Amino acid sequence: MFRVISLVLFINYVTCDYKFETKWFNVPLDHFGFQRNETFNIKYLINEEYWDKGGGPIFFYTGNEGQIEVFAKHTGFMWDIAEEFKAKLVFAEHRYYGQSMPFGNKSLDNEHIGYLTSEQALADYADLINYLQGNKQRPTYPVIAFGGSYGGMLSAYIRIKYPHLVTGAIAASAPIHMYPGMVPCEVFHRIVTSSFKIADEKCVKNIRSSWGVLRKFLESQNNTDWLHKNWNLCEPVKPADVNTLMEFLQSMYETLAMVNYPFPSDFLLPLPAQPVRVVCQYLNETLSGQKLIEAIGKVIKVYSNYDGKAPCVDYKKGDDFGNLDASGWDYQACTEMIMPMCTTGNQDMFEPSPWNFTKYAEDCHRKYNVYPRQEAARIQYGGDRLRAATNIVFSNGLLDPWAGGGILNSISNSVKAVVIIDAAHHLDLMPSNPADPNSVKLARNIHKQNIDKWIREFRTERSDRHH
Amino acid sequence: MFRVISLVLFINYVTCDYKFETKWFNVPLDHFGFQRNETFNIKYLINEEYWDKGGGPIFFYTGNEGQIEVFAKHTGFMWDIAEEFKAKLVFAEHRYYGQSMPFGNKSLDNEHIGYLTSEQALADYADLINYLQGNKQRPTYPVIAFGGSYGGMLSAYIRIKYPHLVTGAIAASAPIHMYPGMVPCEVFHRIVTSSFKIADEKCVKNIRSSWGVLRKFLESQNNTDWLHKNWNLCEPVKPADVNTLMEFLQSMYETLAMVNYPFPSDFLLPLPAQPVRVVCQYLNETLSGQKLIEAIGKVIKVYSNYDGKAPCVDYKKGDDFGNLDASGWDYQACTEMIMPMCTTGNQDMFEPSPWNFTKYAEDCHRKYNVYPRQEAARIQYGGDRLRAATNIVFSNGLLDPWAGGGILNSISNSVKAVVIIDAAHHLDLMPSNPADPNSVKLARNIHKQNIDKWIREFRTERSDRHH
Repeated sequence: MFRVISLVLFINYVTCDYKFETKWFNVPLDHFGFQRNETFNIKYLINEEYWDKGGGPIFFYTGNEGQIEVFAKHTGFMWDIAEEFKAKLVFAEHRYYGQSMPFGNKSLDNEHIGYLTSEQALADYADLINYLQGNKQRPTYPVIAFGGSYGGMLSAYIRIKYPHLVTGAIAASAPIHMYPGMVPCEVFHRIVTSSFKIADEKCVKNIRSSWGVLRKFLESQNNTDWLHKNWNLCEPVKPADVNTLMEFLQSMYETLAMVNYPFPSDFLLPLPAQPVRVVCQYLNETLSGQKLIEAIGKVIKVYSNYDGKAPCVDYKKGDDFGNLDASGWDYQACTEMIMPMCTTGNQDMFEPSPWNFTKYAEDCHRKYNVYPRQEAARIQYGGDRLRAATNIVFSNGLLDPWAGGGILNSISNSVKAVVIIDAAHHLDLMPSNPADPNSVKLARNIHKQNIDKWIREFRTERSDRHH
Repeated sequence: MFRVISLVLFINYVTCDYKFETKWFNVPLDHFGFQRNETFNIKYLINEEYWDKGGGPIFFYTGNEGQIEVFAKHTGFMWDIAEEFKAKLVFAEHRYYGQSMPFGNKSLDNEHIGYLTSEQALADYADLINYLQGNKQRPTYPVIAFGGSYGGMLSAYIRIKYPHLVTGAIAASAPIHMYPGMVPCEVFHRIVTSSFKIADEKCVKNIRSSWGVLRKFLESQNNTDWLHKNWNLCEPVKPADVNTLMEFLQSMYETLAMVNYPFPSDFLLPLPAQPVRVVCQYLNETLSGQKLIEAIGKVIKVYSNYDGKAPCVDYKKGDDFGNLDASGWDYQACTEMIMPMCTTGNQDMFEPSPWNFTKYAEDCHRKYNVYPRQEAARIQYGGDRLRAATNIVFSNGLLDPWAGGGILNSISNSVKAVVIIDAAHHLDLMPSNPADPNSVKLARNIHKQNIDKWIREFRTERSDRHH
């Protein structure tokens, strides 16, 4: 079974007292057909505290694969600039996540999940924006879309597909170019590796050699018992569990790279500032055998138990981070959000694992009774062929493995890339923090300049029509 | 029951020997969901006679509500310019029309018709274009979309929604602005009326007074018998048929205005050149009573029996023009292609009939068990809010009643309006004809200039990427 890497990661509960009202909006189950005419409610959150109701902008977060409150609470950038722009904040929850369930708690069953697609979610948001404008052909309020990660893809896509509804989009860490045939499948793990290399070159060498050492080590029962105790694992690693443990470790390194923020974060598992640097301290000299395994045990301790509250390391639980509905994303990854991933062992520090679409497709079929449409997202959204698009900023942190599928060079005067040298996954959307590097402060200023420009464009066009 | 006015009208079989190959292409029933994973074949026609396979453009006709051969045969403009541009011609049939039936001859049943939408059809075309490009992220051939009427709406929409696949679009007589709340509902019939007024002001006065005269006249059985014989009706007009006869007459005037071409056309019913002028010859002096009714009988004869082959006037058959699948369009008009129509009796020459959406919706529900989504097309396509679009030409003939919902003023440097003073419904797409007015020749030259510009843009962008 291929492991699908979830894009959502900023579940760090920074203490903040953002206030919002929770509302519901009725949408058709199927926007693009009339065979089934059921409707259901999606959730959205609003804050109008700073809004100029006479014409202030609507900042619209295009929700990701998860409960929308999580994104509302952690897209501090929108809250930070709301007053300055006199903006209304809206955070819309993606269908089939959180409480936006078309079929209640049966929504993720195979008989009901088929209406979970990005196109349907975008159409939900389009309907909601139309409603927020008072259902008018000539809208009053400029709408700026925001999103990070998959939400960033959606914020770009909604500007591309519905430019009459959305004036501009900030698309942070959006890997819109990670579809089949667009970038090498190893790019993600190459960047994970280079993030570790920046911290310490030896760290990478140690991790690369650890896989073989561990597999060999676990061939003896004594060693298995030792590992159970020394790594504080909840369960011992039986021969059938070895691959699961390897996946847990690989996922750990991936996650550490994605959330390699300059401040302590309370990711589901709380983490220190610059966690990659922190864990590489244990791997900064050439290690082998049991010493290497002990060191990796310390890395696991940082990752899994930074706050000391976890009784043991549950390496079998996978990527299911509590309040995220990982199963929805897994389905999307099996239908249209195909993002090939592989490792080579040369350019990255992982065990080699080729991309095998046939096997991937068969796994999907087994699980969901669907075959992925490998080309669908490229045909629908165009990959990086965005010459015709306007008013989008694609921001990417170069420490973020997802940047490998991001737009790193400006495409035109108005589809621009903002590269943030020392940022991990959509750091620019997070609340400003004293530990922020200058590069992210600069990126946020560029965002603000663009937002201001787009709003002025909207107003000029609007007043042109009135005179 | 509201009568839905079909947009398709150029079924004039000019003798032409256009040659094409018929092919089939497999598409998903539902592009935007995975609940149902059936596929089916749509038909497309190709001609590569003049094509430069090294990089010549693909001229892609986005098929309307009807059998595609009809459109291939009558979009002479594409054939006329194919050699000059070294273009491949492709004509794609719209799902649920012609032979592009997802469920065979059960496709139009209420249990199967729900996947008949413009969005699904556009996605079919997008898949087909991707296939014609060899399924590549970097396409080789510039694709120009062409379409007239509803097909013109689709050609504009495919450029708007899939600009990475389509480089530019010629959208002829596309009433993309005829959705609810955008233009006055009487605009269509106002233009029908003004077309008749241009021919002869008295003609309009006579037609306007004829409704009351006829209704009064038909109150007596003797007159009914007289009319049956004098108008050569297939069936007598019983009291319950009076409204049907009125609808037939109104539809006749609408159609005459739409196909008011400068050359004889072999519309399902063949017509002389400038048919409005021809029929108004019978109504060019103030008439009343039986004289008026006799004159209208002559109009009917021109309209229904110009070639003398029809045994009688079948006023009950409605707008079902033989090889057109009118029922499909009626369904689209009941779901998302809502185009409000009304008559006032003041600004037009018809009996007043207000637009009543509630009644319209109830009729649709009775027939198809669906309610129209009145705002859907505006939210999906933006009406005339096309500031973000590029590389579209909207052409409209001012004699064409559909021009009332068309784009008559350029929106930007690259979304341009071409107004053709003395043209009816998408005359510019028809084969060139010695009787063509200069204005339509000029329009075709503008089309060619734009197509050439778009192709050069595509090539520049492509070579930029290669160097």
